[in-house]
Amino acid sequence: MAPTWTRTTGSVDPVGPIGSVGPVETQHLDLPQPVPLDCGRELHPVRIAYETYGTLSPQRDNVILVCHALSGDAHAAGSSPTTTDETTRDGFAAEERDGTAGKGLGWWDGMIGPGKAFDTDHFFVVSTNLLGGCRGTTGPSSIDPATGAPYGSDFPVITVADMVRTQRAFLDVLGIERLAAVAGGSLGGMQALEWAIQFPDQVDAIVPIASTHALHPQGLAWNAIARESIMRDPAWQGGHYYDTGRAPEAGMGVARMVGHVTYLSAPALDDKFGRRLQFSDDIRYTITEPEFEVESYLDHQAETFVRRFDANTYLYTSRALTYFDVARQYGGGSLVQALEGVSARTLLIAFSSDWLYPPTASREIDEALRTLGKPVELQVIDAPYGHDCFLLEEARQTPLIRQFLAAGSTAGSTADWAAE
Amino acid sequence: MAPTWTRTTGSVDPVGPIGSVGPVETQHLDLPQPVPLDCGRELHPVRIAYETYGTLSPQRDNVILVCHALSGDAHAAGSSPTTTDETTRDGFAAEERDGTAGKGLGWWDGMIGPGKAFDTDHFFVVSTNLLGGCRGTTGPSSIDPATGAPYGSDFPVITVADMVRTQRAFLDVLGIERLAAVAGGSLGGMQALEWAIQFPDQVDAIVPIASTHALHPQGLAWNAIARESIMRDPAWQGGHYYDTGRAPEAGMGVARMVGHVTYLSAPALDDKFGRRLQFSDDIRYTITEPEFEVESYLDHQAETFVRRFDANTYLYTSRALTYFDVARQYGGGSLVQALEGVSARTLLIAFSSDWLYPPTASREIDEALRTLGKPVELQVIDAPYGHDCFLLEEARQTPLIRQFLAAGSTAGSTADWAAE
Repeated sequence: MAPTWTRTTGSVDPVGPIGSVGPVETQHLDLPQPVPLDCGRELHPVRIAYETYGTLSPQRDNVILVCHALSGDAHAAGSSPTTTDETTRDGFAAEERDGTAGKGLGWWDGMIGPGKAFDTDHFFVVSTNLLGGCRGTTGPSSIDPATGAPYGSDFPVITVADMVRTQRAFLDVLGIERLAAVAGGSLGGMQALEWAIQFPDQVDAIVPIASTHALHPQGLAWNAIARESIMRDPAWQGGHYYDTGRAPEAGMGVARMVGHVTYLSAPALDDKFGRRLQFSDDIRYTITEPEFEVESYLDHQAETFVRRFDANTYLYTSRALTYFDVARQYGGGSLVQALEGVSARTLLIAFSSDWLYPPTASREIDEALRTLGKPVELQVIDAPYGHDCFLLEEARQTPLIRQFLAAGSTAGSTADWAAE
Repeated sequence: MAPTWTRTTGSVDPVGPIGSVGPVETQHLDLPQPVPLDCGRELHPVRIAYETYGTLSPQRDNVILVCHALSGDAHAAGSSPTTTDETTRDGFAAEERDGTAGKGLGWWDGMIGPGKAFDTDHFFVVSTNLLGGCRGTTGPSSIDPATGAPYGSDFPVITVADMVRTQRAFLDVLGIERLAAVAGGSLGGMQALEWAIQFPDQVDAIVPIASTHALHPQGLAWNAIARESIMRDPAWQGGHYYDTGRAPEAGMGVARMVGHVTYLSAPALDDKFGRRLQFSDDIRYTITEPEFEVESYLDHQAETFVRRFDANTYLYTSRALTYFDVARQYGGGSLVQALEGVSARTLLIAFSSDWLYPPTASREIDEALRTLGKPVELQVIDAPYGHDCFLLEEARQTPLIRQFLAAGSTAGSTADWAAE
């Protein structure tokens, strides 16, 4: 059969109309073996929440794993009748889109589907809730078999490497040996990079977006503040709050507010809210009530987030992403050395206004891979929304990702999905 | 007598050796009249904590009022035997200096004294704790005469204009009619600008440093987060915690951490801490304990701050600085119109790495005053430490401020202190 989707000069012809993967339901799978962790402990049992989109090829060589960020889950694409929008697509990402309200769309629905960046006409896209999560995969709110009660803060401290090791074990059960690509934004991009280092022979390509090889100190600080805010809330109760009827919602709310501001750029906030007052043209002289629109927006973000997310999962995931440092972990302090074994083709995407995961971080990865003579491409997209761009700038990411993935195909490396 | 300190080509010769104003003690003064407030209420009694440095000229025309920022107090210069360093000079400002530990130096000691930027050989420098403060001036922790108990959250909501009105009333008691200059950084710079607008005939010059005419929306957001963090702490108790043996220290700590990170630049944090671990070369796998140096630094900042500062004062002062918006208050939305009545010469200083009060804000004031044909000078200092530069970059601010003040003198406008 003649190729219907090949790389032409600078453009990629989608097959069929761009659309949605349709209704999906999150599935669950129990890993047969304990997962060994960096901290020295083992975790068992481990259940994985996951979704898949598209069709697995007979050769099982068209698999793309997408990895979610701090507050995401397995519901990456399609519509889910059992979830509401706010469970996965809050904040800017949900609000900036018209006509999607009430459809329970996945957090990367604009990127995954027929004719989209991760094209389900060609690829079998797999999305899992990460280890330590609170949306179906084993995490601090799961039952500790040793006690019969939720782990709480007895849950082992996990790392990005542990998350990837868990994904590897999960894919083994599905009978998937190789990945055509691993992709994700932010913490999801860290997982993609970790895959290329930990399993170099099993990943053809990675797409770390708005990500880094090691969070900068200001990023460490923001995460520390968010965690402190949760742990200083008396309702956290040392991490054992599940059966008490109380949860550290106050602290989680503040953590979310901090996160939210760091995900956006200052100009984006200016654009969206300016200094507009909430209720009238005049100030009302109040300490306790929101006075500016941006204040009540943050309140709202905090409120919706605490309803859908577990505080301990926030703590563990935040800790994992601060630990992530491939130069320290794999290179004795050298990023070049850490990336020596990588064989995956790499597409790095960064956003000009992202100050939490700034383009410099992606540039450092790009330079290290170039030094090693590895195939790498860096695309810095000039966009105003800050870190959240990886959820918002679908239109401009799509051709970059499609061309990158198609190039892997026409190179005839391992997959023949493009010629089906 | 011939001038001993006049403006020469590009340099200013200090009179005598550069030194300290020596030991000082904060004094207190009760205002004879109630202070009318923007919110419509009146405040009485009002006590002012203040310090003065240098000698008031017989003509009473050599007075410089310095205004402190959110967490400052009246102790701006000299050494105070009754205060410790951490009461006024915490964070970077204290740590970046050697040999000052244990001397109880004022928060702007490097800027106020013989031969310094605000030269006490020529000027009589006055510093007050602002209205709503917790270090001697009437604020939420003061006794409400109506109840005999501390005001708490019954304290009236105050504005920068109220602070300035209070300073005006205080200077009246001292018999000081005109000010040679009003200067301050951050919220202190807002007060300086407010002086020039509210009392145009009584201020010869203003020096707003690292300040703005209206905080940008991201700044509003950081302040909202800090206030939420305090008010969500159950120990805040609706603002009435003074006699309960508890105070919202957990929330205040988080508020301070947020503040602290916004006062510094990302490169400064990188420079100072990098991703260095706290205790060893290896991570310890802990959620609850600091792991990175920057984390324990923030913990330390939080801990020392809650010992010296009142949470309600933080709330009220933070609210006042978010309200500040001279275009809205005085110009029907136009900054140019708001500044129409200003007659003071203006020196604006901003710092390249300050992202909380970025140079753009000072540039807007500069442009508005230029449009009006007012005498204004903008100096953007290229310095790496962010907003805290106004406390740290003494060496580079000093010649700018000395020359600016001397120019006012040699112009023979109102003062003859330079010719004494």
